[in-house]
Amino acid sequence: MNYAMVIHMLGWVSCFEAAFLLLPLLVSVIYGESCAFAFLVVAALCALLGLPLVLKRPSKRTMASKDGLVIVAFSWILLSVFGALPFVISGEIPFFVDALFETVSGFTTTGASILADVESLSHGTLFWRSFTHWIGGMGILVFILAILPMKGGSSVFLMKAESPGPSVSKLVPRIRETAFILYAIYFAMTVVECVLLLAGGMPLFDTLCTAFGTAGTGGFGIKADSFGSYSPYLQGVVAVFMMLFGINFNLYYLCLRKKFSQAVKSLELWAYLLIIAAATGAIAINVFPMFDSAGQALHHAFFQVSSIITTTGFATTDFNLWPAFSRTILVTLMFVGACAGSTGGGIKVSRILIMLKEVRKEIRLACHPRSVRKVKIDGRTVDHDVIRSVNAFLVVYLVLFASSVLIVSLDEFDLVTTFTAVATTLNNVGPGLEEVGPTGNFSAFSPVAKLVMSFDMLAGRLELMPMLMLFVPATWKRK
Amino acid sequence: MNYAMVIHMLGWVSCFEAAFLLLPLLVSVIYGESCAFAFLVVAALCALLGLPLVLKRPSKRTMASKDGLVIVAFSWILLSVFGALPFVISGEIPFFVDALFETVSGFTTTGASILADVESLSHGTLFWRSFTHWIGGMGILVFILAILPMKGGSSVFLMKAESPGPSVSKLVPRIRETAFILYAIYFAMTVVECVLLLAGGMPLFDTLCTAFGTAGTGGFGIKADSFGSYSPYLQGVVAVFMMLFGINFNLYYLCLRKKFSQAVKSLELWAYLLIIAAATGAIAINVFPMFDSAGQALHHAFFQVSSIITTTGFATTDFNLWPAFSRTILVTLMFVGACAGSTGGGIKVSRILIMLKEVRKEIRLACHPRSVRKVKIDGRTVDHDVIRSVNAFLVVYLVLFASSVLIVSLDEFDLVTTFTAVATTLNNVGPGLEEVGPTGNFSAFSPVAKLVMSFDMLAGRLELMPMLMLFVPATWKRK
Repeated sequence: MNYAMVIHMLGWVSCFEAAFLLLPLLVSVIYGESCAFAFLVVAALCALLGLPLVLKRPSKRTMASKDGLVIVAFSWILLSVFGALPFVISGEIPFFVDALFETVSGFTTTGASILADVESLSHGTLFWRSFTHWIGGMGILVFILAILPMKGGSSVFLMKAESPGPSVSKLVPRIRETAFILYAIYFAMTVVECVLLLAGGMPLFDTLCTAFGTAGTGGFGIKADSFGSYSPYLQGVVAVFMMLFGINFNLYYLCLRKKFSQAVKSLELWAYLLIIAAATGAIAINVFPMFDSAGQALHHAFFQVSSIITTTGFATTDFNLWPAFSRTILVTLMFVGACAGSTGGGIKVSRILIMLKEVRKEIRLACHPRSVRKVKIDGRTVDHDVIRSVNAFLVVYLVLFASSVLIVSLDEFDLVTTFTAVATTLNNVGPGLEEVGPTGNFSAFSPVAKLVMSFDMLAGRLELMPMLMLFVPATWKRK
Repeated sequence: MNYAMVIHMLGWVSCFEAAFLLLPLLVSVIYGESCAFAFLVVAALCALLGLPLVLKRPSKRTMASKDGLVIVAFSWILLSVFGALPFVISGEIPFFVDALFETVSGFTTTGASILADVESLSHGTLFWRSFTHWIGGMGILVFILAILPMKGGSSVFLMKAESPGPSVSKLVPRIRETAFILYAIYFAMTVVECVLLLAGGMPLFDTLCTAFGTAGTGGFGIKADSFGSYSPYLQGVVAVFMMLFGINFNLYYLCLRKKFSQAVKSLELWAYLLIIAAATGAIAINVFPMFDSAGQALHHAFFQVSSIITTTGFATTDFNLWPAFSRTILVTLMFVGACAGSTGGGIKVSRILIMLKEVRKEIRLACHPRSVRKVKIDGRTVDHDVIRSVNAFLVVYLVLFASSVLIVSLDEFDLVTTFTAVATTLNNVGPGLEEVGPTGNFSAFSPVAKLVMSFDMLAGRLELMPMLMLFVPATWKRK
C-alpha cells in the first residue's frame, strides 16, 4: 500500500472538513449561539492536523485500486470522528458514541437520529447536521477531486470507491472534470429546490436544511414531526426532488448535452419510476381508509415511497401506524434503494436489474444448455467483472446484515425494531418501524449496537468494499 | 419438450402414490378407523389414473435437462394434490386448500400445520402425514429411479432436479445404483433410529411417525406439544438423528466404502458442525436463566438448533418465548439450512461456503487485480456453472421471499408472523415465531396466503428451478 499517499489524502480531507465547519460557525455567529466556539475549536484542530500532512508531498503519487478503497474508508471515518466533536464540545450531544452515530448518520445520508427532541438544538448544530448530508451525498473525495488538480490517472480509483453503483462511468475522459460536472449538477438542483421552497413561504434556514437533506437523500429533519407540519405544496416539492436526486446523475449530464433520447432509454430509470408508481398506487389503496380523500392518500403514499426508496427518510405521517401490507412495501423499498450514480443508498435498482437478468440467462440456459447468452443492459453487454462484483456485493451485504441483526438483537428489542433498525442504517434510509419508526429514535440502543450500526451506515454508503478492505491482512502489506 | 415422457413419468408417480397409500390404509384398518375408506378410494383413483399412462410407453425415451425439471415439478404437484384427498374425504381436514397446504407441508418435509389439535386425528391420518415426510425427504423420483429400470442416461436429469444442493455427485456411475444406495442408507438410518426410540420406551406408532419426521427432516408432530412431553433420552436421540440426517449422504457412502479420511475432510461437514456448536453454545448461555441447570439449557438449545438448522421443526419447548437474541439466531439458522445432499432444506451450507469463497476471491482481486483466482472446495475447483447457478439461486430465492412476504402481509398479521411464516415455509422448517410459533399454527391465514406458502414449500424443497421453469414460455415449446 502507498501509505504516504493515504496520509497525504487524509490531510486534505481534514483541511476540507475545517473549511466545511466554517459554515455552521457562521450560522451560529449570526444567531448569536454559544456553539460557535465548538465549531471554531474543531475547525482549528482539523486545519492544524491536516496542513502538515498536506504540505508533506509523497514522492510516489500513484495509487492502486486498493489504495483508493482504503483512502475512502479512512476519509469517511476521519470525517465522522472530527465531525462529531462539535456536538460533544457544545454539550448538545454529550456522549461521544451518540455524537459519532449522529455524524455518521449525517455524512452517510442516513438520517437516523439518537435525539429525542431536535427542536431544542441550536441553529448552528441543526445546520451542521443537515450540511453533512449535502457533503456526504455526492461524496467528500469527489468534492476534493473536483477542486484539486491531481496528477496521474489513478484518482479514478478514489471516485470508483466513493461513488454508488455497480460501475462508474466517467462522463468525460478527465476525472477532475467529471467530478466537477457532478457537483455542478448537484449544486444547481439544490439551488432550484431552494427557490421552489422559498416560493412556498418556507423560512430561509428551514429551506437550506431541507434542501441539504433532500439533495443528499439524507433525511435529518429540523422539526419533531419531520415534514408533517409543512404545507402540502412544500411536501410535494420535497417529494418530487427526493425522487429526482435518486436518479443517476449521468442522465442529467446527458440531458445537459441534449442527448435526451439516450437518457430516456435508460432501463434503470424506467424500472425505478415503475417501482415508485406501483408502490405508491398499492400503498394509496391500502391506506385510503385512513385519509379524507383519495388525493390525500396518494399524496402521503407518494411522499413516503419517494422518501424511502431514495433512502432519504423524511416523513409526513407516522407510517409505523399504517397497515402491515404498506409497511412491508416500505421495508422492501429500503432494500431496493435508488439508482446507481445518484445520492441514494440501498442495493440500487441497477444491481437488482443485473441480478434479474442473470437469472433469466440461467433459466434460458436450463432450456437450451448449449446456447451462449450474455447479460445486457441498455444494449451493452454487462462486463463479467461487474456481474461478479454484484454477486459478491449481495453476499457481503447479506452476511453483514445478518451479523448486525444478531449483535443488535442482544439489546432485546422486539424483532421488528431490531430488523428494521439494521435495515434502515445499512441502507442509509433513516427511520425504521416500531421503536425506530418516524416518531421514535435510536437513543435507547446500547453503545455496542450504535457502533455496529455506525459501521453499517458507513459500509452501506461506501458500498461495502472499502470498509471490508480494512479487515483483510493483504491490504496492509507493503508491496 | 418430450410431453409423452412427462406424462409417462407422471403415470409412474401416480402408481407409486397408490402403493404408498396402502400403508396408512393398513394402519387405519389395524386401528379400526373409518378413514380407511378414504385411503382406499384415493389409492384406487391413483392406480386407475396412473396405470394407463404407465402402459402407454413413449416412443422417444430421452429427456433433456428441462424435461427433468418439469417432470419433477409436476410429480410433486400431483403427489400433493392426490395426497390431500384422503384428508378431505375422511373429513379430518374438510377444506381442500387446507388439506393441500398440509400435504405439501408433509411431502416437502416442512412440517407447518393448519391443525390446531393434532391429537384428535385418527392414527391412519397421523401416519400418512408423517409418512409423506419420509417419501419427500429423499424424493419420490429418486425412489422410482431406485426401483425402475430406466433406459438411457437421461434419468440423471430427474435426480439432479430433485436432489438438494448446488451440484449432484453420482456415487457410482449408474444412476439406478446411486438412487438405490441413497435409499438404502436412508432406510437403514431410519431403522436404527426406530430401534433406539423403542429402546427408550416409545410406543411403536409414535416411533414410526417420529422416525419418519426425523429422517425426512419434516417435523409433523403427533402430540400437541410436539416433542415436549417425551423423555430427555428420546429428545436426545431425535436431536442427534436430526443432525445426522442433515449431513450429506455422500459422506455416509464414503464411510460405507471405508473412505473415512475422505469423508472427514469435507469442509461443508465441519462448517455445519461448527455452526451447530456455536449456535447451541450462544443460545444455551442466553436462555440459561430460564432453565434449572446448565445441562438443561444446553439440552434444549441443542434440540432446537438441530431441529431448525436441519429444517425439521420439532420443538421441546416454546422457543417463541426465548429472548430476542436466541430467536434471531434460530431465524438465521432457518435460512442457513442443512448440508447439500441431505434431506434438509434451506439455502444449504455448501452454497453459503461457495458464496463466501466467491467474496474472498473478489477481495483478493481488489488487492491484486491481475492475479488469477479460482473458488475451491475440498481441494477441487468449483465449476463456473455451479457458481453461476448458486448466484442465480440466491437472487431467485430473495425475490420469491420478498414477493411472498408482500402477498402474505395482505392478511395483516404482525410483521414477525408474516416474515417467519414465509421463511419457515420457503426453507421447509415448519414453525416460525409469534402466531406461527411452536404452539401456533397456520390455520388463520387466507386461502391465497396458504397457496402462496404451499408454492414456497414446493419451490424450497425442489430448490426453485423446477417450479420456476413452469412459468417460462420456452419450457412449453416442442423442439
